[in-house]
Amino acid sequence: MQNGSQVLSGSLDKALSAATRSFAQWGGFAPGLRVAVLRGLSEELAARRCELVATAATETGLGGQRLAGEVERTRLQLAQFARFIEDGGHFDAVIDPATDARPDVRRVNVPLGPVAVFAASNFPFAFGVAGTDTAAALAAGCPVIVKGHPSQPETARLVAAAVHAALTAAGAPAGAFQLLPESGLDTGRALVRAPEITAVAFTGSLTGGRALFDLAAARPRPIPVYAEMGSLNPVFLLPGAVMDAPEDLADAYVESLTASNGQLCTKPGVTFLPQGEPGDRFVARAVRQVEKREPDAVLNGSIWQRLVTGTAELADRPGVTVLAGCSAPDGAGRRFPVSLVQAALDTFLTDPALTEERFGPFGVIVRYDTQRALTAVASLDGHLTATIHLGTGDEDDARRLAADLTGKVGRLVWNGWPTGVAVTDAMHHGGPYPASTSAAHTSVGTHAIARFLRPVAFQNSPQSQLPAPLQDANPMGIPRRVAGRTTAEAIGPTTTNTEGRARK
Amino acid sequence: MQNGSQVLSGSLDKALSAATRSFAQWGGFAPGLRVAVLRGLSEELAARRCELVATAATETGLGGQRLAGEVERTRLQLAQFARFIEDGGHFDAVIDPATDARPDVRRVNVPLGPVAVFAASNFPFAFGVAGTDTAAALAAGCPVIVKGHPSQPETARLVAAAVHAALTAAGAPAGAFQLLPESGLDTGRALVRAPEITAVAFTGSLTGGRALFDLAAARPRPIPVYAEMGSLNPVFLLPGAVMDAPEDLADAYVESLTASNGQLCTKPGVTFLPQGEPGDRFVARAVRQVEKREPDAVLNGSIWQRLVTGTAELADRPGVTVLAGCSAPDGAGRRFPVSLVQAALDTFLTDPALTEERFGPFGVIVRYDTQRALTAVASLDGHLTATIHLGTGDEDDARRLAADLTGKVGRLVWNGWPTGVAVTDAMHHGGPYPASTSAAHTSVGTHAIARFLRPVAFQNSPQSQLPAPLQDANPMGIPRRVAGRTTAEAIGPTTTNTEGRARK
Repeated sequence: MQNGSQVLSGSLDKALSAATRSFAQWGGFAPGLRVAVLRGLSEELAARRCELVATAATETGLGGQRLAGEVERTRLQLAQFARFIEDGGHFDAVIDPATDARPDVRRVNVPLGPVAVFAASNFPFAFGVAGTDTAAALAAGCPVIVKGHPSQPETARLVAAAVHAALTAAGAPAGAFQLLPESGLDTGRALVRAPEITAVAFTGSLTGGRALFDLAAARPRPIPVYAEMGSLNPVFLLPGAVMDAPEDLADAYVESLTASNGQLCTKPGVTFLPQGEPGDRFVARAVRQVEKREPDAVLNGSIWQRLVTGTAELADRPGVTVLAGCSAPDGAGRRFPVSLVQAALDTFLTDPALTEERFGPFGVIVRYDTQRALTAVASLDGHLTATIHLGTGDEDDARRLAADLTGKVGRLVWNGWPTGVAVTDAMHHGGPYPASTSAAHTSVGTHAIARFLRPVAFQNSPQSQLPAPLQDANPMGIPRRVAGRTTAEAIGPTTTNTEGRARK
Repeated sequence: MQNGSQVLSGSLDKALSAATRSFAQWGGFAPGLRVAVLRGLSEELAARRCELVATAATETGLGGQRLAGEVERTRLQLAQFARFIEDGGHFDAVIDPATDARPDVRRVNVPLGPVAVFAASNFPFAFGVAGTDTAAALAAGCPVIVKGHPSQPETARLVAAAVHAALTAAGAPAGAFQLLPESGLDTGRALVRAPEITAVAFTGSLTGGRALFDLAAARPRPIPVYAEMGSLNPVFLLPGAVMDAPEDLADAYVESLTASNGQLCTKPGVTFLPQGEPGDRFVARAVRQVEKREPDAVLNGSIWQRLVTGTAELADRPGVTVLAGCSAPDGAGRRFPVSLVQAALDTFLTDPALTEERFGPFGVIVRYDTQRALTAVASLDGHLTATIHLGTGDEDDARRLAADLTGKVGRLVWNGWPTGVAVTDAMHHGGPYPASTSAAHTSVGTHAIARFLRPVAFQNSPQSQLPAPLQDANPMGIPRRVAGRTTAEAIGPTTTNTEGRARK
């Protein structure tokens, strides 16, 4: 024990000190070095794709096609962040020239400092060692120390080697990215407590995220924890939509529910379906589709164990009907069948076992009569997403429902399914607690970089002392809000005070 | 006791339920009602100026001119937030039209929900019941519940009456703004713990702000606490600047140190001055200026008591020289003389008593030799501001110092003084802990509204179900980032998918 924690403390100390040393070079205003590393890393991942996919397939049980797609998604993220910082959007530069009443004030974002990233288990690449959290923090200018997921040590090492190659090729400091050699809970705790760490990014369970949040809040100097945690992702199938096409909806539902074997944070965990004949047709079709599927392996043994005990517990609850699955076949290994249960709305509203997130191929169908379902939304916790399917005659119900859901979620999906998070500027992947610990922040899309930046204002600075993004001449050619107007133009000597002293 | 807490719980419960009820109307996307209230409140404050100033003067001991100026500043803040939401800048609307590879995604900011505001003692208006925190939260669309400062009950009631008048005149729900009838610690704790509250804004001491932060972090659903707390606001007088004009600098220093009797969070609490003759002239002049001033009353008895004990303790520390003041005159009431102490850099770096913020007319002068002072910055905690005065030959030292300080502060002031925070778009009034509990947020300037907003993304929404700021037609005429370009134009049917279904 003592030996282990000495090793840990030794390697963590070294990593922290290398990260701190690298910050001045890595976190500068000029984005060129970081752009080179992000693009170089994208090339490294492409070059190592076969080895990465094969290794991750062994460690996760996920399919090769899914994993190859994830490598591409990871490369897309890196490319988007590279473009974003090259364009200077992350600076959010604002310039208010001096007036008779007030001094010249200019604001720009700067990186926080070294950041801790906890890699997720369900996306070995896109939310892994060099996933969206790492890419966003690196792009922001923050050195990153990663704790890999304990179930994927080889994948983690391979990805880290790709990052190191990209850093070396660009001449960047090695301390800008480090994977800790240990991946246990003690390592995670020590990392969050380290005074050098300025922010934490995490993707995983509510229990894990909350534990890191509590640790960080109790530090002498608290730091933000951006934990993207559990979510039920409620789906509301309105009567007109179900009447229009119950079987098509059921097919699409099962596709979304079983994507990546149900191991997505955006899995449609609970689906509200009207009582009556069209709803019954939806259920019958969903069950048929589910029963066609062979049980598939889940990511690791603890997910499997929680599915076995969780579904058994649910099957015994009063008012809960098992529609499919809910018990592991003999000699299953880590395989678990796609499982569905059904309950009436009253049961859902009163039994907390039904509102717990259950990671893996498992879904709850709740049968409702329209008016009750709409008011029941008020009892929902925060979620990453909610989804509304509307058809003929559903417009007004949908509008009321959307207004309620907007207060509860980070993303509202219409006539689609929550799985598959588009990597775009406008994406918001987060939501009110317990979906995340910071409702204002996203972990997907270019806006994810905001988690690792903070603004600094400069008052009456001489031009020669201003950071480049704020200089009159705008040498970086970035967009800036100057006296309330967004422009990439230089500022003339008549619009501002270049002497560095306030006008009287 | 029991009776008191029953009363408290009764009035708090009522306030929480009124705030929650008002949210749907107050927090809508259309800003008209909120703009009317913010502008109406500005008029109400102007109409009641004399009574407000007279009452606050009695309760705070601050001068009439200072208080009248503060009423104007408060009105300016209200006007700026009204203009900002009228222009739609707070929406931060982003639209990514569908492509072959991804759905249509649109993002807009929405208000968090009911917000708790803790009024500060040192700005009865600008950071008081209807100060910048309240104005920002109201503008965002969040109902506000205020705990007034216990030392200013009458001022609080008068300002609250002005807000109520503005709400009534505009036809706004009374629950959008409420002042709690009690202002004790129990009230504050119960408010932060209330499940209905979604964020907390506070201006005051490190002890108070940290206590609220800890309470909020320990809730079943944690909420953000935006606490603007203490700061030493270090001022670096570089050798060339002091050589150029030691007496002028000393005069300006004393003006800044004694503004509002030293009771500003941006007071220059510690000033680094070179050893040698020009520095000695600065000190002699500062002492002369300070000794000309009559002791003035501080805001309340506890500030006075802390000054008496704090300066006495400091005067006894080895290496600390009293230059002026540091003891209260007989029969002083709440008056305390402007007090200065001096120490060598070594003493400053090793004695924590010198780095404690001491609210009121008190300053520390630290004598340095250049190289040591620059490296000593690394030992500084986070601060709201830092200031650099540079003169002939100081450019390179200033550049290194500025790079270090940018990592420590929210605002860097050049050749000026930190007091007097300009209310502009670019202002950042905040900083790394312990200056604030959220380094990414400001409590002054239009950007302060961001504390009370969170983004929601809408995926493949039918046009008729989209919030107005995101509709193709742009009916509100607001600026939006559409496919990466900022524009206030409407979107044509060719650039997006108006049917509400993803392209395949």
